[in-house]
Amino acid sequence: MEYDKRIIDLEVGDQIEGFYVLKTAQGRVSANGKPFLNAALSDRTGVIEAKCWDYSGPIGTPDEGKVIKIRGTVSEFRGTPQLTIERLRLVEAGDSYDRSGLVPVAPVNIDAEFADVERIVESIEDDDYRAVCREMLLRKGETFRTIPAAKSVHHGFLGGLLMHTSQMLRLADVLADLYADTVNRGLLLAGTLLHDLSKAEEFGFSPLGLVTDYSVKGQLLGHLVMGAAEVAEVARELGVPEAKSVLLQHMILSHHGQPEFGAAVVPQCAEAELLSLIDMVDSRMEIYREAMDETPLGTFSKRIFALEKRIYHHE
Amino acid sequence: MEYDKRIIDLEVGDQIEGFYVLKTAQGRVSANGKPFLNAALSDRTGVIEAKCWDYSGPIGTPDEGKVIKIRGTVSEFRGTPQLTIERLRLVEAGDSYDRSGLVPVAPVNIDAEFADVERIVESIEDDDYRAVCREMLLRKGETFRTIPAAKSVHHGFLGGLLMHTSQMLRLADVLADLYADTVNRGLLLAGTLLHDLSKAEEFGFSPLGLVTDYSVKGQLLGHLVMGAAEVAEVARELGVPEAKSVLLQHMILSHHGQPEFGAAVVPQCAEAELLSLIDMVDSRMEIYREAMDETPLGTFSKRIFALEKRIYHHE
Amino acid sequence: MEYDKRIIDLEVGDQIEGFYVLKTAQGRVSANGKPFLNAALSDRTGVIEAKCWDYSGPIGTPDEGKVIKIRGTVSEFRGTPQLTIERLRLVEAGDSYDRSGLVPVAPVNIDAEFADVERIVESIEDDDYRAVCREMLLRKGETFRTIPAAKSVHHGFLGGLLMHTSQMLRLADVLADLYADTVNRGLLLAGTLLHDLSKAEEFGFSPLGLVTDYSVKGQLLGHLVMGAAEVAEVARELGVPEAKSVLLQHMILSHHGQPEFGAAVVPQCAEAELLSLIDMVDSRMEIYREAMDETPLGTFSKRIFALEKRIYHHE
Amino acid sequence: MEYDKRIIDLEVGDQIEGFYVLKTAQGRVSANGKPFLNAALSDRTGVIEAKCWDYSGPIGTPDEGKVIKIRGTVSEFRGTPQLTIERLRLVEAGDSYDRSGLVPVAPVNIDAEFADVERIVESIEDDDYRAVCREMLLRKGETFRTIPAAKSVHHGFLGGLLMHTSQMLRLADVLADLYADTVNRGLLLAGTLLHDLSKAEEFGFSPLGLVTDYSVKGQLLGHLVMGAAEVAEVARELGVPEAKSVLLQHMILSHHGQPEFGAAVVPQCAEAELLSLIDMVDSRMEIYREAMDETPLGTFSKRIFALEKRIYHHE
Amino acid sequence: MEYDKRIIDLEVGDQIEGFYVLKTAQGRVSANGKPFLNAALSDRTGVIEAKCWDYSGPIGTPDEGKVIKIRGTVSEFRGTPQLTIERLRLVEAGDSYDRSGLVPVAPVNIDAEFADVERIVESIEDDDYRAVCREMLLRKGETFRTIPAAKSVHHGFLGGLLMHTSQMLRLADVLADLYADTVNRGLLLAGTLLHDLSKAEEFGFSPLGLVTDYSVKGQLLGHLVMGAAEVAEVARELGVPEAKSVLLQHMILSHHGQPEFGAAVVPQCAEAELLSLIDMVDSRMEIYREAMDETPLGTFSKRIFALEKRIYHHE
Amino acid sequence: MEYDKRIIDLEVGDQIEGFYVLKTAQGRVSANGKPFLNAALSDRTGVIEAKCWDYSGPIGTPDEGKVIKIRGTVSEFRGTPQLTIERLRLVEAGDSYDRSGLVPVAPVNIDAEFADVERIVESIEDDDYRAVCREMLLRKGETFRTIPAAKSVHHGFLGGLLMHTSQMLRLADVLADLYADTVNRGLLLAGTLLHDLSKAEEFGFSPLGLVTDYSVKGQLLGHLVMGAAEVAEVARELGVPEAKSVLLQHMILSHHGQPEFGAAVVPQCAEAELLSLIDMVDSRMEIYREAMDETPLGTFSKRIFALEKRIYHHE
Repeated sequence: MEYDKRIIDLEVGDQIEGFYVLKTAQGRVSANGKPFLNAALSDRTGVIEAKCWDYSGPIGTPDEGKVIKIRGTVSEFRGTPQLTIERLRLVEAGDSYDRSGLVPVAPVNIDAEFADVERIVESIEDDDYRAVCREMLLRKGETFRTIPAAKSVHHGFLGGLLMHTSQMLRLADVLADLYADTVNRGLLLAGTLLHDLSKAEEFGFSPLGLVTDYSVKGQLLGHLVMGAAEVAEVARELGVPEAKSVLLQHMILSHHGQPEFGAAVVPQCAEAELLSLIDMVDSRMEIYREAMDETPLGTFSKRIFALEKRIYHHE
Repeated sequence: MEYDKRIIDLEVGDQIEGFYVLKTAQGRVSANGKPFLNAALSDRTGVIEAKCWDYSGPIGTPDEGKVIKIRGTVSEFRGTPQLTIERLRLVEAGDSYDRSGLVPVAPVNIDAEFADVERIVESIEDDDYRAVCREMLLRKGETFRTIPAAKSVHHGFLGGLLMHTSQMLRLADVLADLYADTVNRGLLLAGTLLHDLSKAEEFGFSPLGLVTDYSVKGQLLGHLVMGAAEVAEVARELGVPEAKSVLLQHMILSHHGQPEFGAAVVPQCAEAELLSLIDMVDSRMEIYREAMDETPLGTFSKRIFALEKRIYHHE
Repeated sequence: MEYDKRIIDLEVGDQIEGFYVLKTAQGRVSANGKPFLNAALSDRTGVIEAKCWDYSGPIGTPDEGKVIKIRGTVSEFRGTPQLTIERLRLVEAGDSYDRSGLVPVAPVNIDAEFADVERIVESIEDDDYRAVCREMLLRKGETFRTIPAAKSVHHGFLGGLLMHTSQMLRLADVLADLYADTVNRGLLLAGTLLHDLSKAEEFGFSPLGLVTDYSVKGQLLGHLVMGAAEVAEVARELGVPEAKSVLLQHMILSHHGQPEFGAAVVPQCAEAELLSLIDMVDSRMEIYREAMDETPLGTFSKRIFALEKRIYHHE
Repeated sequence: MEYDKRIIDLEVGDQIEGFYVLKTAQGRVSANGKPFLNAALSDRTGVIEAKCWDYSGPIGTPDEGKVIKIRGTVSEFRGTPQLTIERLRLVEAGDSYDRSGLVPVAPVNIDAEFADVERIVESIEDDDYRAVCREMLLRKGETFRTIPAAKSVHHGFLGGLLMHTSQMLRLADVLADLYADTVNRGLLLAGTLLHDLSKAEEFGFSPLGLVTDYSVKGQLLGHLVMGAAEVAEVARELGVPEAKSVLLQHMILSHHGQPEFGAAVVPQCAEAELLSLIDMVDSRMEIYREAMDETPLGTFSKRIFALEKRIYHHE
Repeated sequence: MEYDKRIIDLEVGDQIEGFYVLKTAQGRVSANGKPFLNAALSDRTGVIEAKCWDYSGPIGTPDEGKVIKIRGTVSEFRGTPQLTIERLRLVEAGDSYDRSGLVPVAPVNIDAEFADVERIVESIEDDDYRAVCREMLLRKGETFRTIPAAKSVHHGFLGGLLMHTSQMLRLADVLADLYADTVNRGLLLAGTLLHDLSKAEEFGFSPLGLVTDYSVKGQLLGHLVMGAAEVAEVARELGVPEAKSVLLQHMILSHHGQPEFGAAVVPQCAEAELLSLIDMVDSRMEIYREAMDETPLGTFSKRIFALEKRIYHHE
Repeated sequence: MEYDKRIIDLEVGDQIEGFYVLKTAQGRVSANGKPFLNAALSDRTGVIEAKCWDYSGPIGTPDEGKVIKIRGTVSEFRGTPQLTIERLRLVEAGDSYDRSGLVPVAPVNIDAEFADVERIVESIEDDDYRAVCREMLLRKGETFRTIPAAKSVHHGFLGGLLMHTSQMLRLADVLADLYADTVNRGLLLAGTLLHDLSKAEEFGFSPLGLVTDYSVKGQLLGHLVMGAAEVAEVARELGVPEAKSVLLQHMILSHHGQPEFGAAVVPQCAEAELLSLIDMVDSRMEIYREAMDETPLGTFSKRIFALEKRIYHHE
């Protein structure tokens, strides 16, 4: 018996036990009239078809996306491995398993990143901008630490939004210094922190926290407009002057840079312009990082949809 | 002495008295060291240069855009008429003058148009949508009856927003009937009423009510985002279900149809798609109407900026 | 034995008789050297594979697209239903079957729609425009009542062109009234009636009347140019003044609004501008109607090619 | 007394007599109450202001664009030369003057060019295509020999259309040979001859034959659609098979290559594709020729509107 | 036994011997533990799966793309033909086979085309331009005679670059004559010869000489920049004046016409403009020729990627 | 007598002496037949018309753009100030004047900036990249310290290229650290240093060092291609491996990011992508800085050509 063996490593004859994601599940009836479960299990490394014979529940389609614990044996069907499940149950309180083995997670230290975000927020000298940032961090709570920044384009893993935001804040901090005579540091840093926070409401999530789709509200309004609205509300509650609230809203509404990339308005102050460029720097560098991971040295990647080109992984 | 003679009709030697717009005004000192007022007066029909000799105030630059009452004589200077002002004062309570002689006004009956708007709003069967419309009409009050819909592209005259909105509502009413199986009448009508209401905050206005420029907030946020925010607030106060509020916001945010025309999101439901088309129909027809007014029968207009082409005024 | 059972309802073991479309047909030889017919049958609800053993004709590939009468039994092959045909023949004079069960038809009353078109044409006050409309209706005859308006984008069913045109005429009638000071009612209505009439020559049709492809002439000239040419000819024959003929041709040539959407020239008079917008309103509303039919309430459709987006079917 | 002296060479004190274009003319009244003619005269080399004192007609504004014969003296007014006219009359039958001194004419031998066109037309082996070409040359008559090909972009001089067409025919003749296995020579040559012939109806012309503007019909239909319609008519009258007529129409309708450049349909056969490229080659080479004429060796031209760039005149 | 039978003609039972391309090859182990070769063979007409039982080498994956000589028998597996190889070896010195039967080759006489290129080069009167051309022909040597001009868009066969270049030179020669007052013949011809020569370094090639991909350098720099650099070097070595070298480089850098088509700079002299058009003419005519080859008379082709449209093959 | 008084401060009656730029100069003859110089003088603050009566040289048109020393008196002509020059001569060796009073110079310490560039270059660990940088700095010498980075868009002042490059290097240094797992620091820094160095050959300069226009070579090849060529040459001379040379060339060729912005190829490695973004960040921030300098707090700028929008200078 092997425990939590990675799916990519499974071989015919393996007897395994461990935690996996129930990717799909349908109750079926076999040729001989007996119920069975037709399922697919996944972890970070791959997917395997699975059957549980003589099984009529309780686990089924409504549990798709959840973690289950199983015991079973790997066989082969038409040339591909298949798992015959002997025992299965949903994950329970008290179970201990490594979520990062089941779904992709950000390759950073979440606590350290979050501490860095807090440190930079606390360094904002303008009381109003700092207050809005603090309040928004309180409101978003755990969500900000855990959700991905996208479904798949870049940072599409747990902790992706935090990783993206903290890296952008570090860059914004440097740029506020390099262009100190042109940009207001507090406004730039606050806009950077706030720009994507409404992604928490824009997306729908799987039980394990990955992005599955857009929410209705997210699709109809977009995270830019939702983000500006929430910041406007917080600013009003905190008594922030309207001029500052309008600037913060403008930062969020314009951070996609151009209408064809989703900006509700074009950036019209130096901080908004810079925020849209910082966002572009960090998202593109992450797209390169992720693509280079899958591209051997000295070769070109396959075409990358978000960049509309292939990239070269030089030595 | 002639009263309120139209500027276009002024001739050398005319002695006039009446109300005009103080288009520009600067205090100057003449070659002989005496103060005088260098000004330009306007009405709907034109502009005339004017001087008031030996005048040191109180009227000056800060009064530009206001209505003044003057008495004077028309002379000529280097081939163009010029008015020598003998007496002048700002308009006062109790003065009676015809504003439509001074600035362009919508060629409709404002009261009748407004009554039509109210009639259509009252015909909305959905309580929530009707309630939001009523409340927004209350909030906007007189503004909605009086402001132009634009600086110059179309409906750039007093009452323009009302004229534009009421015509669109009549058209929306018909379309809700023609496409009854595809669109929700209440949502379509409410979106149509609300779509441009935040233009009141988007623009800056002259003392007589014409659009002079964008406000800072209007430029940085746009009337789409401002309008959606205000409707969201009103809907929340009235206890309208969030799903309906989101749809109303979506109508407003998407009514420019495409990102490159200023839409914050693209229309994604039938009512939003239709609203953007209704807006296009009414604005284009008004552009044609205004251009045809200035184009003789059987000829082509000069190039119209908003249409990127010349149009033909056929017989 | 069940008669004209819908293909979507067929189950293994069903014995059926009825009329179906012969979607595809190839004569083949089996492993044991005997001829058989390999075919696919369709109705509005679906498609089923079919075999007729020991069959060498006369029905074959040249009959694809025609209606046939069959008798047979439903079996299963590799998990999907398959029909074993026992008898088959082409439809004959005297056969009675429901065409609307075999191909999609417009969800309107064809006679009523046509009557409405005639009523509106007769209401045109301008003798010239009315005469051209009458003559074109005579020329197009039955075709105008029956052909689809497109292969698949919208109105891709029998009667689609009539449904599209009559709805546009009703809308044009209202708009001619709402913008009576800007548009000429007769020109607008005539252009609306005429705008798509040459689709009859632009397409190729299946035996049952659906659009299968473009004709050579239709592909090389397009229905805009062909339509303008035919109207020019009719106008000349009827003695219509050239100025009016040119305006009618302009309406047809420009009704796609912009060159990149296929307009041969851009709309340059108010009626042409309005016609292109009316066309856009009706085609988009029909795209929404058709897409919403296939999209559950509260969800988004799949991406719609013609709109380049997904749409939301709200409750 | 000098005769037909070029305007660019006029000096104060010159006494002249000759033929000039009456570019503009207004009847005026002088300060002392006497009528005079305020005019501008032009030839190929320039424009000069002119006055004819104590003159009340018959020549006036309606004669603008015509050739007049004048006698007068050159004086100076505010630093620029001015002509005082002593006698003037419209050109009469029997007058002999050099039109090429008054307006720009093509730098080619018109008769030789026309002969070349006829020679190439006669070399078309296909009877149908050759017949259409012959008939169209008959119909267009003198027009084809004389009109410009444009107002100003390229070939904007008398004989421009012929010069453009004959050069394109020579090039088409070579290409028909180089790509003999891909293109039909007769179709290519016929399409080349016919492609711009309707410019004769698309433009408005000055009395001397230059393009002043578009005609109403030309603006509303365009020379592509008008040309295709005329060719279709001629082909029908000559009994040309419809397939060939459709190809000829397609050549004309598509010769601008792309919708955004005015093509009614995109080229879809090899000859149409090639025609659009031949047109591009000849028009661009002429733009270069005209621009290089005005650009010193070793320098860059000013920005050329039609090319959206500056060009270099190398040694 | 049949020799070099075309793959498209193979039938079950054929015993064959001959030369084919080893398209793919993997060493495998069968169920009974014995090694075998799993391969695919190709010629110009098609591809066939092949097995060589009890075979452990030496031929394998590293030999993919090479020519092999085989003897074998055609059988059938799951409905498709399959070759059982009995003997196989790599092609050897002394073997005689027809390469044009294995890979596509230009439908021209290579020697005659090359002679024509040399003839035109020798006709260049300018000593500098002619010298650069001669030297580049020497440098490129055999490569210029043999490589394709592209992977697949057009001229994607052996000898394609020569066929493309020689045809363009003939056309350039004619155009230099037709536009003798606008273009410098030597510059135009030299630019035409040189424009694509660096494709030899831009591509990667299969053992038989077809283009398989881009080289790293080719992808990162492009054949325009590489070509300009090589010409600059040659010009410097030959002592060509810099002004002429710059013009030659400009021709190469701009020959794609527009930035979005890959031009490093836009054409700014008449010769560069003309070169980009000549390139367009020849590449499009070749695309038509290749597409028409595969399109029956009187029908439309499938959509052609490079043209973004379907084309018509008229009779 | 006032010395080097700023032109913006000149008043009628001032007697001045000092150094100014001879912006324009033409030798003329007055009404009384005497020669005089008609000139315009400029400094950083403005331009003034000037006359030197009874002057026939030696200073004239060929000296435009040079610095002259003058003595003169300010009078008035038609309402604008005009300088009557009494003495003038070209600047001579030994003259001492403040160039920064005559032309705009970068608001940085040139020596400190250059030292920073050298420090960062020395910090490159890769011997090849560092060697290329050192050699290029040697080759460019003083030019790199002094020329502007553009004619007017941004950094259009003396020292502009250095200011732009050094700021970009500081930013690149930080980014190399933030994205250390994705980018090669040496390649990024070297590409940043080198990217604009060929602007020295791309431009033409006034005697005082401002950009007046493009050079012929600069216009026909562009600084991207020229820069890549020079780096390739240097790399070859220094024995740098070709793979590294190709990467450096790629950085330079692609640093405008997209073909429509002038990139010869699109960025295809992480460092090239990042360089194009760093360039965008620094150029946009400088555009904002320069525009905000001319825009009062709380107002919007006039439309900025390079950004295609107006910007807001918030408080």
